[in-house]
Amino acid sequence: MLISKIGEFGLIERFRRKIKTDPSVVVGSGDDCAVLKFDKRRYQLFTCDMLVEGIDFTKNTDPYLIGRKSVAVSISDIASCCGEPTHCLVSLGLPENTNLKTADGLFEGIFGICKKYHINLVGGDLSSSEKIVIDVSMLGLVDKNKLTLRSKAQDGDIIFVTGSLGGSIRGRHLCFEPRLKEARFLAHNFKVNAMIDISDGLVQDLGHILEQSKVGGVIYENLLPISKDANGINEAFYMGEDFELLFTLPKDQSRRLLDKRKSGFYPIGEIIKKKSGLTLIDKKANEVEVKSGGFRHF
Amino acid sequence: MLISKIGEFGLIERFRRKIKTDPSVVVGSGDDCAVLKFDKRRYQLFTCDMLVEGIDFTKNTDPYLIGRKSVAVSISDIASCCGEPTHCLVSLGLPENTNLKTADGLFEGIFGICKKYHINLVGGDLSSSEKIVIDVSMLGLVDKNKLTLRSKAQDGDIIFVTGSLGGSIRGRHLCFEPRLKEARFLAHNFKVNAMIDISDGLVQDLGHILEQSKVGGVIYENLLPISKDANGINEAFYMGEDFELLFTLPKDQSRRLLDKRKSGFYPIGEIIKKKSGLTLIDKKANEVEVKSGGFRHF
Repeated sequence: MLISKIGEFGLIERFRRKIKTDPSVVVGSGDDCAVLKFDKRRYQLFTCDMLVEGIDFTKNTDPYLIGRKSVAVSISDIASCCGEPTHCLVSLGLPENTNLKTADGLFEGIFGICKKYHINLVGGDLSSSEKIVIDVSMLGLVDKNKLTLRSKAQDGDIIFVTGSLGGSIRGRHLCFEPRLKEARFLAHNFKVNAMIDISDGLVQDLGHILEQSKVGGVIYENLLPISKDANGINEAFYMGEDFELLFTLPKDQSRRLLDKRKSGFYPIGEIIKKKSGLTLIDKKANEVEVKSGGFRHF
Repeated sequence: MLISKIGEFGLIERFRRKIKTDPSVVVGSGDDCAVLKFDKRRYQLFTCDMLVEGIDFTKNTDPYLIGRKSVAVSISDIASCCGEPTHCLVSLGLPENTNLKTADGLFEGIFGICKKYHINLVGGDLSSSEKIVIDVSMLGLVDKNKLTLRSKAQDGDIIFVTGSLGGSIRGRHLCFEPRLKEARFLAHNFKVNAMIDISDGLVQDLGHILEQSKVGGVIYENLLPISKDANGINEAFYMGEDFELLFTLPKDQSRRLLDKRKSGFYPIGEIIKKKSGLTLIDKKANEVEVKSGGFRHF
């Protein structure tokens, strides 16, 4: 039997069930970051992301953008938990016949974004491999009372995204700005109930919030910010690599956020009691059940 | 110009020079682990290691042993700093047509060694890739006064290894026991000046200690424990993947260790003032300059 038969998330669940952790672990596998005890005031966040040639980028992608993206995706995970990134390591597999110019480009991309976000690059591992592969592991810190998880959405919450969705694969996925500034703004001004970054598509990632919070959701087609790069709503639903934050706020907080008329925060729906999964109210005000789906590695 | 022209260590140095870190970083890139401020008593250790199919193992290697090794190499890095491993993440790239049995084997290997060493597996990343690739990032803790680095060897120190060297590639590299117990024993009983684990061969890894400590070294062929798997001294010198600890103790401490007649600690030479690099005293008492070399990815 092949792993593609049970699929990426089936495989993850299969192994997750067997993992036991000690009390130093606040949240283990299953959220954007692992959450570890750190000091009286803060938790430590720990996350990793692997980018592989042929999957996340091609032979012809600008190495600078590959390097930049390899770090940006982990920053996005730290932002999803309302944390601040602090340190990272980079494991890099390179073909022997890689041009020095390509290697320089990768490192410049990595350095550039680490510098911009004040992240300490503290080492890594270099290996030969047939195709380019980069795995970045990152540490961060979050105030205990600011930590946001996938599992804390509440009936009545308003669902927001930080930007338009869909079509990222046509270029945006290589130069997106991780939403750290937005996460910081939320952390300082609001009590966010649940948050995730959209890496596998709105439907799949909102699905993680709904499932882990044991709630249902409604989204309104009229409210959904669809990217000009997207070919229709389906790509906004399922394409992935948007790296926008998807979060839920209690109604009063949500009103406060909307009153600020701050750009970059789009209400798209609400959290309801669990009965079905995710419902779309389309432009004609019809209720449509949204089929699950999104990017899966296998 | 290809990266193979400047080589693995040339490439690392090229980029290391550009890295700047803030005061939260005690030791950044360039040792077995990054060393980060943690609390009053302890530092946090942070390390990663990438294993790639075709380089570190083959298509026919038992998946259990691949999974086990992917974690063991990072434990070995933590042991080199006299620390205790605490948490790890696993990034795993798998071909779509991987058998579930292979994936199960990999995870059993990872779980088994995490359990044995009380390491919390707190998540990871799963990706498709043409060949199997595993990158493990690991956290650990070390008492500030126990931390051992590559850079603190002193003139007059005795050089030790924890086991026999060479020929590991014929099998031992897949089932070696990381020398955590030995590191713990040393940390509790002695003041180790410098330590590294031998992953790229005795000469290359001792070379890191000599260079970073700005000292020279002498080793005695008569004292060198050569593995029964090794074809001669050259393999003990240059083959790598031994994952034994290589450390230096001040003379008085060294005498105390030898007086204990504890098995598993072999004195092989001594640290001298820097004049040349590494000298071998061969079986006929001739002084031979040891050529640098060892495993390099490119």
